[in-house]
Amino acid sequence: MARRPPAAALFASPDDVEAQFYEALQQADLGKLMALWADDEEIVCVHPGGPRVVGPAAIRETFEAIFAANPIPVTPEQVHRLHSSSCAVHHLVERITVRTDEGEQQAFVLATNVFLKTPLGWRMVAHHASPGPPEAVGEPAERPSTLH
Amino acid sequence: MARRPPAAALFASPDDVEAQFYEALQQADLGKLMALWADDEEIVCVHPGGPRVVGPAAIRETFEAIFAANPIPVTPEQVHRLHSSSCAVHHLVERITVRTDEGEQQAFVLATNVFLKTPLGWRMVAHHASPGPPEAVGEPAERPSTLH
Repeated sequence: MARRPPAAALFASPDDVEAQFYEALQQADLGKLMALWADDEEIVCVHPGGPRVVGPAAIRETFEAIFAANPIPVTPEQVHRLHSSSCAVHHLVERITVRTDEGEQQAFVLATNVFLKTPLGWRMVAHHASPGPPEAVGEPAERPSTLH
Repeated sequence: MARRPPAAALFASPDDVEAQFYEALQQADLGKLMALWADDEEIVCVHPGGPRVVGPAAIRETFEAIFAANPIPVTPEQVHRLHSSSCAVHHLVERITVRTDEGEQQAFVLATNVFLKTPLGWRMVAHHASPGPPEAVGEPAERPSTLH
């Protein structure tokens, strides 16, 4: 019988990768998170207000430090999608719910996520997140787009 | 004799598009700038600290307002490139030189630029820029990467 790679390693669509990315953040699951990225030294990640981080080893280190503090209570919203046959650009608003002494507070982050189709399925190659102004919120947008 | 489209409309590489993008910012040339984007309603642009802007009409409006004030004295630096056959993700530091009463000041912006290969050549589909912390600077990185 032919050996097959684990099913979990084959992401069928950019939406699959993105859904697991935000689950991994919510669960502080470093292994799950890192399995979503392409195996390439030029993958890039910018955390809100932070420097850019390039390459799998450096990206792993930053998430390890973040998860050591806490999971990230983040919900992806208002996703815009631009797809070609082997590349997908998603732009979305990340809603982060923080409990403070004055009750729940909401913070909003703008994120661009880029995915490429690799021999192992779709993988994340870039995550650029930056603090969003309040006016970023409230836009109902879920139209898909395919660029030919 | 066969008619050919204007040479300027056929961008041969992501680097061509990116070079013209920063030239257009430096020259406050709205026509040149908008010709670089893919013709798609889901193209997306985030100016540093601003909201996200989706679609060609809205993106044109924001650059029109910016150019009405001034050209942008921006120099792209420290470009990281991740290329596939039809998609390119560039991450770079934008150095912005501002003249103030106390002399020249430098500001730094982190930018992710995404390009897709279209029937008309390479086009920009996403530009996400956010204020960069000082530690974003000083990294000598010009290694190209091709993801197969």
